[in-house]
Amino acid sequence: MQLSAQQSARFERDGYVFLPEVFSPGETALLRAEAARIYASTRPEVVREKDGATARTAFAVHIFSEPFRRLAAHPRLVRPVEQLLGGKCYIHQFKINAKAAFDGDVWQWHQDYGTWSRDDLMPEPRAMNIALFLDDVTEFNGPLMFIAGSHRQGVLDAGHDTATTSYPLWTLDHATVRQLAERGGLVAPKGPAGSVLMFHCNLVHASPGNISPYDRSIVYVSLCEVGNHIRQFKRPEWIAHRDFTPIEPLADDCLAELIAAPAAAE
Amino acid sequence: MQLSAQQSARFERDGYVFLPEVFSPGETALLRAEAARIYASTRPEVVREKDGATARTAFAVHIFSEPFRRLAAHPRLVRPVEQLLGGKCYIHQFKINAKAAFDGDVWQWHQDYGTWSRDDLMPEPRAMNIALFLDDVTEFNGPLMFIAGSHRQGVLDAGHDTATTSYPLWTLDHATVRQLAERGGLVAPKGPAGSVLMFHCNLVHASPGNISPYDRSIVYVSLCEVGNHIRQFKRPEWIAHRDFTPIEPLADDCLAELIAAPAAAE
Repeated sequence: MQLSAQQSARFERDGYVFLPEVFSPGETALLRAEAARIYASTRPEVVREKDGATARTAFAVHIFSEPFRRLAAHPRLVRPVEQLLGGKCYIHQFKINAKAAFDGDVWQWHQDYGTWSRDDLMPEPRAMNIALFLDDVTEFNGPLMFIAGSHRQGVLDAGHDTATTSYPLWTLDHATVRQLAERGGLVAPKGPAGSVLMFHCNLVHASPGNISPYDRSIVYVSLCEVGNHIRQFKRPEWIAHRDFTPIEPLADDCLAELIAAPAAAE
Repeated sequence: MQLSAQQSARFERDGYVFLPEVFSPGETALLRAEAARIYASTRPEVVREKDGATARTAFAVHIFSEPFRRLAAHPRLVRPVEQLLGGKCYIHQFKINAKAAFDGDVWQWHQDYGTWSRDDLMPEPRAMNIALFLDDVTEFNGPLMFIAGSHRQGVLDAGHDTATTSYPLWTLDHATVRQLAERGGLVAPKGPAGSVLMFHCNLVHASPGNISPYDRSIVYVSLCEVGNHIRQFKRPEWIAHRDFTPIEPLADDCLAELIAAPAAAE
């Protein structure tokens, strides 16, 4: 799987590319069931919402879950990123954001590279995100909002927000967001489960709370070009990985295999 | 202004009717400026968000503001409601919900008549809401979400939520909302400032927080058929009115007059 010249150009201009239904309903169902199992477990990698109960984020699931280990090396995710970053990549962060029905909380306006740069000393923004929808993402269940083209501003001033939600984040102030939105406008890509959203690590984004009766789990894989690995190990290993081994993509049917032979997932 | 047979039938079936651009940009700008002036004032009728600063709701503004006094008797709002309720009406509640950019908080799933019935002893659901958009309402700034057809369920069990936001509300539990949404589906009518949304007082609705850089003020006028007036005066007079005088609609140009002669608004 390769991006077309048009898709690459669009990524450069807008900071994101949306690819509907990259994974099949069967593959997505497998991952969704595995995510539910992980949310219900009590591991330090599973961060809760402020209520202390609802799962907010499950980090580093590719380390302890076979379906997600395979997803992390899936050619449909890895190949397009290698193409855009121009080289082999390693996994900087791998998480599932749950945004549960009724209780999923907001993510304030931020740039991911703002955190990777400040907290992890990642040298350059030669890294990016892939979001894989495990549920249908609609206008109702807290879709990701982007400010189109905002990645071209470089790293913007940010403050460390440790109060709004249960997870600390370098967030942008209101004046900056207002100004950027006037220029680029907001966009909230939506689509069925199995769709993929690739976006630049400097793209300004946020997502509102989910008060709808529909869950909205999204897997976020953050890949970094190997030579651009982080220099500072301040955050826990399961939040900012220290294993810079280049990903060797698996076969395209690596998830389908698990559906055919579920025992392999144990 | 009268609703067509088709619009009335739609109201009966779905519980709401959306009427785009009922008020002109000039009329809407007049009301929006007045709303901003009211938010900045320190009156007991202006309820703040949990942060203690951002305006959440301004109640009874038609009592102390000339533009809103005229809006409350505007024929484009009053006539269609008289038609649907089959008689003269009085103002049960009149408020502006601010849902400010970045800080506007959620309204949990509820039925308005659930509160009017329990707290105010309003005998029957012969009352309804009119929402007038003072700002453009988009997918980004916390649009109202309805469960279509849910008004036909009558009054549903509810619990008194005094914790989630700064305003107490009789809210529905998750299982009920999930079940109703499976049946009717969600809908979030959106449109430019000046649009009007009329909805049944038993229609189940909610609205998410607004983390976008765009304000989203909506005026809510709750009208009740005069014979169906409330029997219990437990809530403050400016939240549940005790003046049951039937509204006498003003002329269609009652707001345009104020734009032509601003001094009349003092």
